[in-house]
Amino acid sequence: MIYLTRKAEFSSSHFYRNPAWSDEENVRRFGKCANANGHGHNYTLEVTVAGEVDPVTGFVVDLKLLKDILEEQVVSVYDHRHLNYEVPEFKDSIPTTENIAVAIWKRLNGKIPGAALKRVRVYEMPDLFADYYGEQQ
Amino acid sequence: MIYLTRKAEFSSSHFYRNPAWSDEENVRRFGKCANANGHGHNYTLEVTVAGEVDPVTGFVVDLKLLKDILEEQVVSVYDHRHLNYEVPEFKDSIPTTENIAVAIWKRLNGKIPGAALKRVRVYEMPDLFADYYGEQQ
Amino acid sequence: MIYLTRKAEFSSSHFYRNPAWSDEENVRRFGKCANANGHGHNYTLEVTVAGEVDPVTGFVVDLKLLKDILEEQVVSVYDHRHLNYEVPEFKDSIPTTENIAVAIWKRLNGKIPGAALKRVRVYEMPDLFADYYGEQQ
Amino acid sequence: MIYLTRKAEFSSSHFYRNPAWSDEENVRRFGKCANANGHGHNYTLEVTVAGEVDPVTGFVVDLKLLKDILEEQVVSVYDHRHLNYEVPEFKDSIPTTENIAVAIWKRLNGKIPGAALKRVRVYEMPDLFADYYGEQQ
Amino acid sequence: MIYLTRKAEFSSSHFYRNPAWSDEENVRRFGKCANANGHGHNYTLEVTVAGEVDPVTGFVVDLKLLKDILEEQVVSVYDHRHLNYEVPEFKDSIPTTENIAVAIWKRLNGKIPGAALKRVRVYEMPDLFADYYGEQQ
Amino acid sequence: MIYLTRKAEFSSSHFYRNPAWSDEENVRRFGKCANANGHGHNYTLEVTVAGEVDPVTGFVVDLKLLKDILEEQVVSVYDHRHLNYEVPEFKDSIPTTENIAVAIWKRLNGKIPGAALKRVRVYEMPDLFADYYGEQQ
Repeated sequence: MIYLTRKAEFSSSHFYRNPAWSDEENVRRFGKCANANGHGHNYTLEVTVAGEVDPVTGFVVDLKLLKDILEEQVVSVYDHRHLNYEVPEFKDSIPTTENIAVAIWKRLNGKIPGAALKRVRVYEMPDLFADYYGEQQ
Repeated sequence: MIYLTRKAEFSSSHFYRNPAWSDEENVRRFGKCANANGHGHNYTLEVTVAGEVDPVTGFVVDLKLLKDILEEQVVSVYDHRHLNYEVPEFKDSIPTTENIAVAIWKRLNGKIPGAALKRVRVYEMPDLFADYYGEQQ
Repeated sequence: MIYLTRKAEFSSSHFYRNPAWSDEENVRRFGKCANANGHGHNYTLEVTVAGEVDPVTGFVVDLKLLKDILEEQVVSVYDHRHLNYEVPEFKDSIPTTENIAVAIWKRLNGKIPGAALKRVRVYEMPDLFADYYGEQQ
Repeated sequence: MIYLTRKAEFSSSHFYRNPAWSDEENVRRFGKCANANGHGHNYTLEVTVAGEVDPVTGFVVDLKLLKDILEEQVVSVYDHRHLNYEVPEFKDSIPTTENIAVAIWKRLNGKIPGAALKRVRVYEMPDLFADYYGEQQ
Repeated sequence: MIYLTRKAEFSSSHFYRNPAWSDEENVRRFGKCANANGHGHNYTLEVTVAGEVDPVTGFVVDLKLLKDILEEQVVSVYDHRHLNYEVPEFKDSIPTTENIAVAIWKRLNGKIPGAALKRVRVYEMPDLFADYYGEQQ
Repeated sequence: MIYLTRKAEFSSSHFYRNPAWSDEENVRRFGKCANANGHGHNYTLEVTVAGEVDPVTGFVVDLKLLKDILEEQVVSVYDHRHLNYEVPEFKDSIPTTENIAVAIWKRLNGKIPGAALKRVRVYEMPDLFADYYGEQQ
């Protein structure tokens, strides 16, 4: 068993708001992240898959295929988008780094032929990231 | 004469739109950057000043003072803001990396006691940045 | 369960010396790290906590609170300090990267409300780091 | 138990070719990586070992010794070499990132006194890396 | 006048050899870089252009066009190639970092509409790079 | 004319103190940097030289020779040292980033055969650096 990790990037807007709270409560809890015009980040995504090395190719997973899946399932949907307004999973959940990692797991899980999804890591900033390993852990 | 450079960061939203053009023309020229909901970046700012080293302190400029000036003049205005909607200089100019660099120069020039502003560098992404050296160059 | 990691930095001096050894033995074992005037590093700390995502906030842990805890428990004590002379846990243990990671675990464990401390990583240099996962592992 | 990780680098050439396939099939499967003149990378290696901290030294493993082992067992063999033509383990296996990680594990396992080899990570590019944890996992 | 810099990457093989010298002399002068099987690097290219900001677009140069020019003129020719064997300008000159920077300047100069080429920077490794500013400097 | 830049690193201790001031004044002016036990950094040095490319070697300067000069003139003197106590030029000047850059210029200028020293850049932290171009600029 070997683990392969590929990175991708997307640049998106978001803000933090719980609609059950008043504007004042949102600012008190989320500070400047509550600004409803949104702010943005260069997100970095690391996707880790695991499997046996195919002795014919030396690959766990075809790199081009993995890149295409990340592009189709995640980057084309998130990049240059406002996460709150344009990405369906954030209509009802706040696009925190934690929730973005879980959402990307759901988008990718079961879509990568021949390898198991093991970890989704999302960096919002170089000094802050979330890891999700699926429900088993 | 010695040059001192200090970095700062801000996370902002923006989009590219020329109001003189139709929506179609904006998309044709700016691609996905024209999305009016905005997208965002972790911008990195590098500000370079120059002067003689003060023999009493060993400094060109007091580092704490320089940090405070960057915070007050730039970061507090741009960070966690939507540049098009909330920063006055981008009411009438498109917040491209080039225009952001020029706007930051105007905000900082003449505000740093005892040292001359020499360069403003703005990274929109790690692989794209603009440098402005003022009008003299 | 999701894992959240936040980075912090501190710039400190240290040296390696076992008081049970002669000066010659310390130099033989620790090389230039034994220099009693000390040398220094920009340390990078990565702290990983885990927990359930709060559906109300989208957070495992409040980011501002986590940052304040790292500042209060670690950065304010270690930054711009000589670890051997000014940080109590290194009176009797050598401030190697390994020992620093364990010491920071002890400083943080049990102090983060609502989330479990999972890993402390300390980089002494970009090419050398130690990970501590607590006693259970 | 604490984990210590040390990085090393090597700059090598390689290409991807399965000798059981025609030239056309190799290009179809491996794209530009099949070019038999080879292309190259600055590889980054991260080696993680684990053990108890020696109370006398504060080390899991002597850093100088670990560096020397990486140099002798890996860097001196791989660096400035064409992996397909000059490194014996790639006579019969394709030097993919996955296979390189496994090969380095075999070179290092059992060679590090007093500490257990836990992980070998190989970056081929900053956005692609493989992790190998040995057969037990 | 404002300066815009865009990065690109290519992964290539090369070696250093002066055909006027014996094998021994090549090894004596170039060390392990003389190995005729080649070794390789992840090269990073930074191209800087300068011009006035177009008030209609906010751009010095259209970013998509600049990216396409770098791809067409440099990356498609150098990436996943053996520079000595497959890139014409290195038939008669050694592909050192210095010579690669000059060669890329010649490939790009005059090809970027509306902006002046100002600098070509080539990183062979993160700790070594060459800058070429054209003949005027 | 082409410019070649090579990086090196050193890990050192320092503190800021003007002996003409009281302890209180030193703290007031230099804050936590005035702590006389010292603190430390992983400094990164970038040295830029310029010259014509030698058509026989493709080099501005022999890379091994340049590395050896940096090692001998700077790294062996500064690395794992307390700059205030152990490096002669800081007996009478405060080891600020600015003064370190000037001191390294003086150590290197005239020592690099066949190439002109053009710039010394010293990073104290990733977000703070000083550039010195010699007296002519």
